[in-house]
Amino acid sequence: MSILVVGSVAFDTIATPSGRVDDILGGAATYFSLAASYFTDVRMVAVVGDDFTAEHESVLKKRGIDTRGIERASGKTFRWGGQYLDNLNEARTDFTELNVFQNFHPQIPKSYLDTQFLFLANIHPLLQSAVRREMSNIRLTGGDTMNYWIRETPQELRDTLKGVNVLLINDNETKMLVGEKSLPRAARHVLALGPQALVVKHGEYGATIFFKDGAFGIGTHPFRAPALPIEEVKDPTGAGDSFAGGFMGYIASQGELNREVLKRALFYGGVMGSFAVEEFGTQRLQDLTRDEIDARFQIFRELTHLE
Amino acid sequence: MSILVVGSVAFDTIATPSGRVDDILGGAATYFSLAASYFTDVRMVAVVGDDFTAEHESVLKKRGIDTRGIERASGKTFRWGGQYLDNLNEARTDFTELNVFQNFHPQIPKSYLDTQFLFLANIHPLLQSAVRREMSNIRLTGGDTMNYWIRETPQELRDTLKGVNVLLINDNETKMLVGEKSLPRAARHVLALGPQALVVKHGEYGATIFFKDGAFGIGTHPFRAPALPIEEVKDPTGAGDSFAGGFMGYIASQGELNREVLKRALFYGGVMGSFAVEEFGTQRLQDLTRDEIDARFQIFRELTHLE
Repeated sequence: MSILVVGSVAFDTIATPSGRVDDILGGAATYFSLAASYFTDVRMVAVVGDDFTAEHESVLKKRGIDTRGIERASGKTFRWGGQYLDNLNEARTDFTELNVFQNFHPQIPKSYLDTQFLFLANIHPLLQSAVRREMSNIRLTGGDTMNYWIRETPQELRDTLKGVNVLLINDNETKMLVGEKSLPRAARHVLALGPQALVVKHGEYGATIFFKDGAFGIGTHPFRAPALPIEEVKDPTGAGDSFAGGFMGYIASQGELNREVLKRALFYGGVMGSFAVEEFGTQRLQDLTRDEIDARFQIFRELTHLE
Repeated sequence: MSILVVGSVAFDTIATPSGRVDDILGGAATYFSLAASYFTDVRMVAVVGDDFTAEHESVLKKRGIDTRGIERASGKTFRWGGQYLDNLNEARTDFTELNVFQNFHPQIPKSYLDTQFLFLANIHPLLQSAVRREMSNIRLTGGDTMNYWIRETPQELRDTLKGVNVLLINDNETKMLVGEKSLPRAARHVLALGPQALVVKHGEYGATIFFKDGAFGIGTHPFRAPALPIEEVKDPTGAGDSFAGGFMGYIASQGELNREVLKRALFYGGVMGSFAVEEFGTQRLQDLTRDEIDARFQIFRELTHLE
């Protein structure tokens, strides 16, 4: 089943201990779409400027991604510059130029309205809510956010969360969202805000999914998936969005929504995140095979499963 | 098979968000022994002062721990004071009074010399090496250390590591030991110093075991065990030593030394660490049952295993 992602397309300038790249294709919706494209049909809603060329678009089209929802606006595409020279776990932003993204008002093409799976990447919570309301055939909505929205638009974000089935954020965002230092307790409070499941991304330590009582089946325990210990992380940019793409893409590819599907999805999220960081930008996500993906899934299993 | 631990017995004064305790029984060898005692016979070598009473000793004896190797010295027992008010993951030390521990020279009772499993808790590397040399029937030696020895006695520590089969340290210690920021790369360098396996403890994110090529069987992948997400960590003191006790105790209880045993041991380490933090000091480790331990092992399995 197809999945729709609404979020940013960007050109990134990135410095890491492994090197430096200028103005390469990035953005949450881009990483998400490429990662999800190995599991299911992907539709994008985003905005780009005049500098977004046919060559850039072909990166998406080659993966069969439906780009009809990418709006062309007059001006430059969103640009971000950052570095991970001191710390591979957290970017230091050098500059952010919102450009055409500043006035992004997601327009959903009519041909997308039958989509049953939705991912609201990290954009203004009011835009996330508007998109969610417009889509009336959704079986499952995933969502992301960031510290900026948690701080600046707390009420709008809480409204958005009522329409999000699975929220994917990191440890700090989880604790910040509900003002609680203990992660399991923070998770419980987040689940009281609306989502049926919360995926907390731990970076190099993997991710944990917490379930609301009775959601997606029975059971009281969370579930934890590892990350792959990678000797050289070339570029961490987009790891979280690639994780979300693998996670949501796998879910959309399955007929059922239950805990086992979500657990396996957590593994596939980790798998796609682990590929993303092996090369700069989206490079590694452009020409994977499903065999490579399933072989790595198997490694993730061996990393965690007793005989 | 019995296991010998050499390390500290202490009286701890601890403040956490859950409360405060004064002068309660602690120390690496104490936590280790109590945790290991649920799996195998435990023998202790340590030093205490006049203030160590029969009541303190009975905590150990009730768990069947052999205390003949605990030396009584004139003076006060090692005392430590610390708090976790801002951060449950790292103690802020208020005071350290080495007292009789300052002149600790481990004396191994003759009756201990047939011991086949040894754990060198965090003491001066020269003392660790001396103990290791004295024991001639050892099948497996586990060891711990800390940033202080890594910084102050690097050469002595490297000598010690040649006699340690499994080193158990945390992320920062691993990176610091070999001056390398990437954990998997640091692990590879540590394994080149002697140990056949390295257990890296990640605190609330669990632990990873890295194997040297060909050690304990075949395979190229590390293995990761989770920690239990605990809503209220009452007192993190001793979690790492309890982890080591569960890990080494389980290994000593098994006839064979292979990767599956070490992987299961990593789970039992996490299990014992998760019990330790539920109450102040060693309280929770004093009256567990093997059924409780195995039930929690099962929870750890459910936390990580796909159907």
